[in-house]
Amino acid sequence: MSKPYRRLDIHNAAVLLVDHQAGLLSLVRDFNPDPFRNNVLALADLAAYFKLPVVLTTSFEEGPNGPLMPELREKFPDAPFIPRPGQINAWDNEDFVKAVKATGRKQLILAGVVTEVCVAFPALSAVEEDFEVFVVTDASGTFNEVSRHASWDRMSQAGAQLMTWFAVAAELHRDWRRDVEGLGALFSNHIPDYRNLITSYNTFKAPKPQPKAAP
Amino acid sequence: MSKPYRRLDIHNAAVLLVDHQAGLLSLVRDFNPDPFRNNVLALADLAAYFKLPVVLTTSFEEGPNGPLMPELREKFPDAPFIPRPGQINAWDNEDFVKAVKATGRKQLILAGVVTEVCVAFPALSAVEEDFEVFVVTDASGTFNEVSRHASWDRMSQAGAQLMTWFAVAAELHRDWRRDVEGLGALFSNHIPDYRNLITSYNTFKAPKPQPKAAP
Amino acid sequence: MSKPYRRLDIHNAAVLLVDHQAGLLSLVRDFNPDPFRNNVLALADLAAYFKLPVVLTTSFEEGPNGPLMPELREKFPDAPFIPRPGQINAWDNEDFVKAVKATGRKQLILAGVVTEVCVAFPALSAVEEDFEVFVVTDASGTFNEVSRHASWDRMSQAGAQLMTWFAVAAELHRDWRRDVEGLGALFSNHIPDYRNLITSYNTFKAPKPQPKAAP
Amino acid sequence: MSKPYRRLDIHNAAVLLVDHQAGLLSLVRDFNPDPFRNNVLALADLAAYFKLPVVLTTSFEEGPNGPLMPELREKFPDAPFIPRPGQINAWDNEDFVKAVKATGRKQLILAGVVTEVCVAFPALSAVEEDFEVFVVTDASGTFNEVSRHASWDRMSQAGAQLMTWFAVAAELHRDWRRDVEGLGALFSNHIPDYRNLITSYNTFKAPKPQPKAAP
Amino acid sequence: MSKPYRRLDIHNAAVLLVDHQAGLLSLVRDFNPDPFRNNVLALADLAAYFKLPVVLTTSFEEGPNGPLMPELREKFPDAPFIPRPGQINAWDNEDFVKAVKATGRKQLILAGVVTEVCVAFPALSAVEEDFEVFVVTDASGTFNEVSRHASWDRMSQAGAQLMTWFAVAAELHRDWRRDVEGLGALFSNHIPDYRNLITSYNTFKAPKPQPKAAP
Amino acid sequence: MSKPYRRLDIHNAAVLLVDHQAGLLSLVRDFNPDPFRNNVLALADLAAYFKLPVVLTTSFEEGPNGPLMPELREKFPDAPFIPRPGQINAWDNEDFVKAVKATGRKQLILAGVVTEVCVAFPALSAVEEDFEVFVVTDASGTFNEVSRHASWDRMSQAGAQLMTWFAVAAELHRDWRRDVEGLGALFSNHIPDYRNLITSYNTFKAPKPQPKAAP
Amino acid sequence: MSKPYRRLDIHNAAVLLVDHQAGLLSLVRDFNPDPFRNNVLALADLAAYFKLPVVLTTSFEEGPNGPLMPELREKFPDAPFIPRPGQINAWDNEDFVKAVKATGRKQLILAGVVTEVCVAFPALSAVEEDFEVFVVTDASGTFNEVSRHASWDRMSQAGAQLMTWFAVAAELHRDWRRDVEGLGALFSNHIPDYRNLITSYNTFKAPKPQPKAAP
Amino acid sequence: MSKPYRRLDIHNAAVLLVDHQAGLLSLVRDFNPDPFRNNVLALADLAAYFKLPVVLTTSFEEGPNGPLMPELREKFPDAPFIPRPGQINAWDNEDFVKAVKATGRKQLILAGVVTEVCVAFPALSAVEEDFEVFVVTDASGTFNEVSRHASWDRMSQAGAQLMTWFAVAAELHRDWRRDVEGLGALFSNHIPDYRNLITSYNTFKAPKPQPKAAP
Repeated sequence: MSKPYRRLDIHNAAVLLVDHQAGLLSLVRDFNPDPFRNNVLALADLAAYFKLPVVLTTSFEEGPNGPLMPELREKFPDAPFIPRPGQINAWDNEDFVKAVKATGRKQLILAGVVTEVCVAFPALSAVEEDFEVFVVTDASGTFNEVSRHASWDRMSQAGAQLMTWFAVAAELHRDWRRDVEGLGALFSNHIPDYRNLITSYNTFKAPKPQPKAAP
Repeated sequence: MSKPYRRLDIHNAAVLLVDHQAGLLSLVRDFNPDPFRNNVLALADLAAYFKLPVVLTTSFEEGPNGPLMPELREKFPDAPFIPRPGQINAWDNEDFVKAVKATGRKQLILAGVVTEVCVAFPALSAVEEDFEVFVVTDASGTFNEVSRHASWDRMSQAGAQLMTWFAVAAELHRDWRRDVEGLGALFSNHIPDYRNLITSYNTFKAPKPQPKAAP
Repeated sequence: MSKPYRRLDIHNAAVLLVDHQAGLLSLVRDFNPDPFRNNVLALADLAAYFKLPVVLTTSFEEGPNGPLMPELREKFPDAPFIPRPGQINAWDNEDFVKAVKATGRKQLILAGVVTEVCVAFPALSAVEEDFEVFVVTDASGTFNEVSRHASWDRMSQAGAQLMTWFAVAAELHRDWRRDVEGLGALFSNHIPDYRNLITSYNTFKAPKPQPKAAP
Repeated sequence: MSKPYRRLDIHNAAVLLVDHQAGLLSLVRDFNPDPFRNNVLALADLAAYFKLPVVLTTSFEEGPNGPLMPELREKFPDAPFIPRPGQINAWDNEDFVKAVKATGRKQLILAGVVTEVCVAFPALSAVEEDFEVFVVTDASGTFNEVSRHASWDRMSQAGAQLMTWFAVAAELHRDWRRDVEGLGALFSNHIPDYRNLITSYNTFKAPKPQPKAAP
Repeated sequence: MSKPYRRLDIHNAAVLLVDHQAGLLSLVRDFNPDPFRNNVLALADLAAYFKLPVVLTTSFEEGPNGPLMPELREKFPDAPFIPRPGQINAWDNEDFVKAVKATGRKQLILAGVVTEVCVAFPALSAVEEDFEVFVVTDASGTFNEVSRHASWDRMSQAGAQLMTWFAVAAELHRDWRRDVEGLGALFSNHIPDYRNLITSYNTFKAPKPQPKAAP
Repeated sequence: MSKPYRRLDIHNAAVLLVDHQAGLLSLVRDFNPDPFRNNVLALADLAAYFKLPVVLTTSFEEGPNGPLMPELREKFPDAPFIPRPGQINAWDNEDFVKAVKATGRKQLILAGVVTEVCVAFPALSAVEEDFEVFVVTDASGTFNEVSRHASWDRMSQAGAQLMTWFAVAAELHRDWRRDVEGLGALFSNHIPDYRNLITSYNTFKAPKPQPKAAP
Repeated sequence: MSKPYRRLDIHNAAVLLVDHQAGLLSLVRDFNPDPFRNNVLALADLAAYFKLPVVLTTSFEEGPNGPLMPELREKFPDAPFIPRPGQINAWDNEDFVKAVKATGRKQLILAGVVTEVCVAFPALSAVEEDFEVFVVTDASGTFNEVSRHASWDRMSQAGAQLMTWFAVAAELHRDWRRDVEGLGALFSNHIPDYRNLITSYNTFKAPKPQPKAAP
Repeated sequence: MSKPYRRLDIHNAAVLLVDHQAGLLSLVRDFNPDPFRNNVLALADLAAYFKLPVVLTTSFEEGPNGPLMPELREKFPDAPFIPRPGQINAWDNEDFVKAVKATGRKQLILAGVVTEVCVAFPALSAVEEDFEVFVVTDASGTFNEVSRHASWDRMSQAGAQLMTWFAVAAELHRDWRRDVEGLGALFSNHIPDYRNLITSYNTFKAPKPQPKAAP
């Protein structure tokens, strides 16, 4: 009756960032600009932190869609970057699929702009090829809530799992003792309320730094 | 566990516009009037652009429901137009079903007013006859968000796919190189933010026009 | 892959109104009071109009939950009315189930207050006994949208269909020609926008009254 | 086609409260603080009222996440309390799972902060081990509605049931006559509108106290 | 520093209903249709109840703006009714101003559609002629909240007072003992929550009817 | 050009609680029930904490409006309590005005249900008699946001100041050193986020209790 | 006590359009893109329709702010167009002020992007020079509702009047008989609900065209 | 009739940052955390950019209110920093007032947490001493929108001007040519949409840098 628990595994996951381009970002209206930018950068940071393979792609970046957010190129200078010459569904681009398969990973953590096209199309294609697809809903943006929820339904019915960057980070990390400072820094940099907690904690607890990690 | 990816195919799709009538439009309150009108016209424009067969129908157009939006008749003067004498579910009207089947298409792109009746009823009937049904959620309007979400759930559970006009256009087009100017014009005419991108792009890039299409 | 289209049939449907009591109504906060009252009365009017069997029930009506909305008793003086002495799930009350089964109907149109209890519990029980359950979402109210959507999900996953009073009326009526004046009056009395359409239509078209019904 | 009705049973249910910690609570933004605090305390009160076994756990409580809400420790001084040294998914902590299994219950009523991690992860793990999982959506909080709805979808698709504390109480109680005063007090303490109903009722009906319980 | 308290006086007030026409009502989007219709009828009922002079007017009622809501004509068959041949600001119509002045009242209770035109224009004109203007904000509707709040600001800055139908009724009535049944009926007919209170009260208190009026 | 800063003074302020009755509370829809109840009790607690004179009044409490919230009577057993026999504006009741004047205070902190009547009317009357009026907006409730904002505008234009219970407490207290524990307890009991801060602080800082008060 | 009614006069009004540039438009988030674009074009259309003098200006149009919306240049090819080389407040640009004064008009109808800067600054400057300023709130956009309402308050306190394009059109036109077809066309082109009314009206009333104009 | 235009002057303005403390920030619920943090840092950045004198203060920072946001101390290491030992209204603290007056500025740009206390109280006090007060509404946070709007009204009525950080920056800067790169960097760092414009612009226009500054 129920789906099995497909749990993200740090050794089996890759991150696909699709079309976070300077022009296309102006279309995103289901998030306010500050949190959306923060979510995308948080996803990039967690990919780097967990050393996950990353694949970058853009659609028509020399036209009005504009260039990829510079921060993403800078953060992953060695990641495969596939500027698609025209294919709207990134999965229709052989180089992109090749790059994805070259990671050797079967769990695809996917985000992009706009949700119902740049995310949903490759998500549906990847599910068909038996990848496990995890959509990072809060790093994927679109025109409005109707587009968001219609595309969530389509992806969920097809078998993709709806996640957030925070849930992805937590499911990959599994145990704080793996690296307290690292995960704490990730959260502090992208969750102002968490940063405040740490600020107060450190002040009250000083001079002791952070709670000590497990052996 | 998951549904197969039923992907829209330009050679297998038809568009059904159900009851976008001047009177009934005053009932639509889950969209503001400007975007809703825009979405309906965008769907019409994409149907014309992709040369998809279109079927038009109305319910009781000589009564308070009022006439079809004139723009739709004008845009598709040769499309079959079935003013239903009384059937609420368009699929109960033999002429309508005949017109749909005469298109020879198995993928039905469906929009109308109001969502839970004029869209949901034929959607459910068509699914039962093994058509693939794609509901254009943002060109379908109703009284409020309760009606919208209840009817989305009913249609989705029955196997219909929830789309938007933008996702339909992108899934049909598949590759920008098919016709850059055409798709760009469609987006520019119906997405103000996209129009702005193109305006700035053209200004900065002039005198070079648009990025050149693939051979 | 998809559920079959279980379509409401005027000869096979009954209406169950559960706990629309004067006290409990003050708990309803996911609808504003005016539309909620209107929706409940619209459902009652359509039940009367289509001559569907109706079963009324209340929970603890001599306590703070208060008496049934007087309009419902007055509209259905001969309907079975089961004031439950304590059972929270109406389906746990033998008299209620007996009354439902006595209607001989297999399609249950169900509404009540509050949604996640008074509606969801009997909905789930009835589905288990192979009734087809149609929840009238807009005549069922609860504390807030979290309660609403959590209970919708539970009912939908169990196989109930989410409807609105307007969709129920339209699916039962099937063809305007069955009775134009009757359905028009139902809509005019409960949809101000529709009433306005009729007012303008009649003024412009006078002295001809309504569009004539089919033979 | 539909899931069976898994109904909460007072003899088979346990309550798991995960990470309602003073620091983490500042992250909760999908509920206003007053109702969220009220919902958590209502869930605790109902657990105590129905004498359900309770398991408490925290994540890293000596760090910025902060201590458990003191009210929960005070209410369940004898409940197993597992401060996890690092595991993010409580189900990864052997002591926690052992404590859950020691209750001998197969129905797990689960709430926590934040929903997509502290609730969703153990919910998915428990479903995999054939527990029946009931998520108390309104005693579980997270950053925003995107996180809420993405995680609801993941849990629902996996087979968990989405509940509220009120629905849990009502489904466990089953019949008011079991204890009118007790359930009335629970509702009066946590639902201001219900308290008002009782206040007015008692005033108007005095000197008769509450409606008499069944024999 | 502060304005004097201009208090509504039953002997000095008149009600002006401007352009509540069947067509124009479809433009109103800052209220849902059910409460807006209710508010307009409540204002009409209170005008009748307090026997205030009423002036009715319409704009271009033979065109698309449509006829006045029939309920208003029926309720005030003897009130002056000025169908304006073209003036947008009712105060530009001599017959209208004459009718207003013929009431001999200096306090004008004003509502209409749409707020920033049909209400604001005569409100500003009347203030200039030293009438005291009371705008019934909830019986005046317009396109959206921007229009509403911009026009509220303009009217308030000019010296008009912003009221609701309920506040108008209460300020005119002043003392329940003036007529308990009458005011109770007005509230019961237009405030579902108040009706519920009365229903429960009457049930619990029976056979005594309503609280007795003062001598 | 600007109003002088009328600052609340603990020796010159009184609290007027108007019509917080069990029945009338069911009309309040511009606040959710949990925060509204909390705000009213917070205002009562601060009145008691600062030992301000309090005047209680009700409208028609033997009818459907219902009795005063019992907590208010219990908290101020010695406060003047004026059940008005019929006057809607409490200022029209001589006993009430007498009680207000007997306090000898010129600053009136005022809250009630519903805002545009039970609060606005006495606020306007008191301003006319040269009292300084401070409306506690979040302990005053009404039907919806239209009623709220229309009445705020009327009161503000007349010279009343719009406050919240938290601002009232802070303006009266002036200096934390006056009584750290007392004000901290008030905030902890009525602001869950503040309670969490204190819980974490006390845990981290233990065994030192609260920051020490000034001499 | 109240401001005089400064009424727009077709012979004394000019329209100032400030910084509706393709880049800056992507900053506007307090309106959805479809209605905002529509409002700006409606304001332009009404300026043309009433033959009001128009002044166009841009800020730094060769930089990222981008070029003026092309539709505005095309509609007013002969209007003074002042691309400001750097001044943020258009009133600081001598050419702009000269162009405004050259119109000879004392009533300035003002709209722009973003509201709190490009609109508020020249509005405040113009008021200081004794112009009557009418802000077209719905053709002026900004980042969010906080920015909108803060700037509305600043402008309103300074003496500007808050309008909408519809109110401007109606106040200028004054009498439908001045030109029924013209005003009707303006409304039909920019208010979908009004267009629907006209469509139904014309259908029902045909072959008679529009209501006849006054002599 | 209208207030004079008090325009911010770079030589006459100072910035007061009141109580942006790690604990108090968890109380802020009228903004989402990402934009609120961004707004506060933007205000700090503009103060540094324009070299305005800054005064920092905290309330009880050794208690649960927590330490000042570390970024503020780091950005203004030489600014007067007044940790108030207890005064709630910063203006009641002599050292604070002395520091403000020592700046020699008469225009006070003020922001803090929470709005109705830490901002409103010193704003009202400063206005009384004839300072010109500019409240940065979007860098000031509080519990909810009721608190926000009540306090805005109180401050606006007293003569304070409601601003945003963006309007403050623009009014101080006055002319882009003063320093194009500097202001562009400020906007790019705090307005994601503006950053995107610059990214696209630079890409399209390269290798030419930014539009050239005035001589």
